[in-house]
Amino acid sequence: MTVIAIPEGSLFGPGNLPYGIFSTADTEPRVGVRVGDSVLDLSRLFDDIVFAEPSLNAFMAQGRARWDEVRAAIQDAITGDLDEDAVFSIDDVTLHLPIEVADYVDFYASENHASNLGRLFRPQNPDPLMPNWKHLPVGYHGRSSTVVTSGVDIVRPCGQRKGPNDEVPVFGPSVRLDIEAEMGFVVGVGSPMGSQIAPDDFADHCFGAVILNDWSARDIQAWEYVPLGPNLGKSFATSISPWVVPLAALEAARIDTPVQDPEPLPYLRGDEKWGLDIDLAVEWNGHLVSRPPYAQMYWSPAQMLAHTSVNGAATRTGDLFGSGTISGVEKDQRGAFIELTWGGAEPVRVGDETRTFLEDGDEIAISATAPGPDGTRIGFGEVRTRILPATGTGI
Amino acid sequence: MTVIAIPEGSLFGPGNLPYGIFSTADTEPRVGVRVGDSVLDLSRLFDDIVFAEPSLNAFMAQGRARWDEVRAAIQDAITGDLDEDAVFSIDDVTLHLPIEVADYVDFYASENHASNLGRLFRPQNPDPLMPNWKHLPVGYHGRSSTVVTSGVDIVRPCGQRKGPNDEVPVFGPSVRLDIEAEMGFVVGVGSPMGSQIAPDDFADHCFGAVILNDWSARDIQAWEYVPLGPNLGKSFATSISPWVVPLAALEAARIDTPVQDPEPLPYLRGDEKWGLDIDLAVEWNGHLVSRPPYAQMYWSPAQMLAHTSVNGAATRTGDLFGSGTISGVEKDQRGAFIELTWGGAEPVRVGDETRTFLEDGDEIAISATAPGPDGTRIGFGEVRTRILPATGTGI
Repeated sequence: MTVIAIPEGSLFGPGNLPYGIFSTADTEPRVGVRVGDSVLDLSRLFDDIVFAEPSLNAFMAQGRARWDEVRAAIQDAITGDLDEDAVFSIDDVTLHLPIEVADYVDFYASENHASNLGRLFRPQNPDPLMPNWKHLPVGYHGRSSTVVTSGVDIVRPCGQRKGPNDEVPVFGPSVRLDIEAEMGFVVGVGSPMGSQIAPDDFADHCFGAVILNDWSARDIQAWEYVPLGPNLGKSFATSISPWVVPLAALEAARIDTPVQDPEPLPYLRGDEKWGLDIDLAVEWNGHLVSRPPYAQMYWSPAQMLAHTSVNGAATRTGDLFGSGTISGVEKDQRGAFIELTWGGAEPVRVGDETRTFLEDGDEIAISATAPGPDGTRIGFGEVRTRILPATGTGI
Repeated sequence: MTVIAIPEGSLFGPGNLPYGIFSTADTEPRVGVRVGDSVLDLSRLFDDIVFAEPSLNAFMAQGRARWDEVRAAIQDAITGDLDEDAVFSIDDVTLHLPIEVADYVDFYASENHASNLGRLFRPQNPDPLMPNWKHLPVGYHGRSSTVVTSGVDIVRPCGQRKGPNDEVPVFGPSVRLDIEAEMGFVVGVGSPMGSQIAPDDFADHCFGAVILNDWSARDIQAWEYVPLGPNLGKSFATSISPWVVPLAALEAARIDTPVQDPEPLPYLRGDEKWGLDIDLAVEWNGHLVSRPPYAQMYWSPAQMLAHTSVNGAATRTGDLFGSGTISGVEKDQRGAFIELTWGGAEPVRVGDETRTFLEDGDEIAISATAPGPDGTRIGFGEVRTRILPATGTGI
């Protein structure tokens, strides 16, 4: 038998307990929970086949009462002796994509981000926001097949771009490859076609949250996106962190959103607070370049889910939705390099070098923490990705 | 033993053989092939567990050589005696959604449709097409969870809309509910992240084609779509026909696309012809209102798939992509009511009534046929849908 020692100040104490999918040299991918610097194998702790699955989906589909029950049982179990075959060092495991992604939707919920992009792309407009922006959480469907987790390198995408001085579009590797630092939310229990989810029912449907990096090829996106929105500028990759922090771990992080004026339509109103006081950090080649504050996000994830389903669209276990780039009011809180470098006009220092957009070999790590119970902090871990050179350039 | 009698002039002769998922009162959903007015149970004809699955995905994933082998074996089998337990009358079976949809992308490949919408929405522009339109097949990701098949009623969606004279957006049932008559293409064999599919490799990846109705709430769409494209105006439902016509059945339908000028970039060029001479028919409450000709589509499905993957995006078994509304040059060839009624300004006759957009209780049936081998014609069947009144209006 063994006891899990949780280091002082660990971001993975008993108030966190994020779920993920792990494997070792000897075991297939299965469900684990992170405790301190250990991973606890839930397929050994509980007699339930959902924990032997290679994704969290079957467990998530069991619903909120079961999520609460399992969380309480884990909190109880880790105070005592554990089967040593059920406990692994975080250094000895491989982490996998935690969910089988059903539909992936990405929103645009930061007023600072939307305003910055408006100022960059439509400087002639007096209001940088589009007329619909404060009435609904604007979003679009992204590509589920290219959601990957931390540690999966991203190949620089190729595509069409057409600069202001180009007569015709040219084909080649993106020269304006960017990040979007976001949080992602995972649906555990879906809703049937023809029904709606109210904002106050969010916790019955949303299982938890991850860090999300919505890779964006700004040059491809700029040429393609009228009138149907982003497609190949985004569809090549979206990275999420391997640990899904359950909503129950975020109780102390729940805050009001900023004041929403005009008041949203009734279907977007609720009594529950679903603003979230999550602090992100973006490292570029090991150097901190931005600290996006989720607390400043205009639309809450509960509003995003309510909006997604208000037309009767079904939601499913494994649906993933991103918040959109998180940007604070300060320059060093901007969650995309197009904002941080003001469209490339103001390079940023990255250690001894300067950067506008991503170069081959660059590595981005986005991490996040939030208030936990009793004055502690909890961590989301990180999503870390390296950029590989383009392939297929000779097509 | 029994013999399948194929009626003279049947659209489901041995040159067609579309695949679908069917069940009877006594049997679970499984793979069948339509022959004349019969459905042949492939789980009884072949000793392969893929045919006992409730979707075509496992069979589709086996690849083109296997698709050819099975097609030849069916063509051989139906000339002789068959186990009578393997043959059902089309009237005795229930048809189901034929595929488990992975990613769903919808394109915008009809020059007539894109030009008509440009003239309607941007009458001040000298060129109704956007600058990118003739350089790439414009498309966006749609919602996979709401793809349904023929016979599934659609609940009128609710959402925000804001008319030109509204001070603020209002919430309620869509008052401009429309169809988009399209063809859909199903990926059988995907491609890994970081790789590209060339147009001439289309037949190694695409399993077959269906009729697709991309339901569109024009009022919701008009308010929400800037700048990230359609979301709730489309995500409530997409209907496809239950029979997937294999690409091999479309040999006689293959034609050149219209001349593409300017010449597309090399990754969109190929030697194989993938224009398709498919004739659609749209019936509104039983009255023929449009005959959209797929032959006039500017971009081929092979180009759509090449474009989807040129940035290295993975494709998967079960990916579905729609052509976008099919509209011919003539008014009675327009595949969406917003074009057919010119934004609602020119109502159409529907039997003894007139219509602009869809009313509750209306029924739409889209059918399609194409040239088959030896002067025959083949059918895609139909996708038939009724509009139910909105729910959730009191939110």
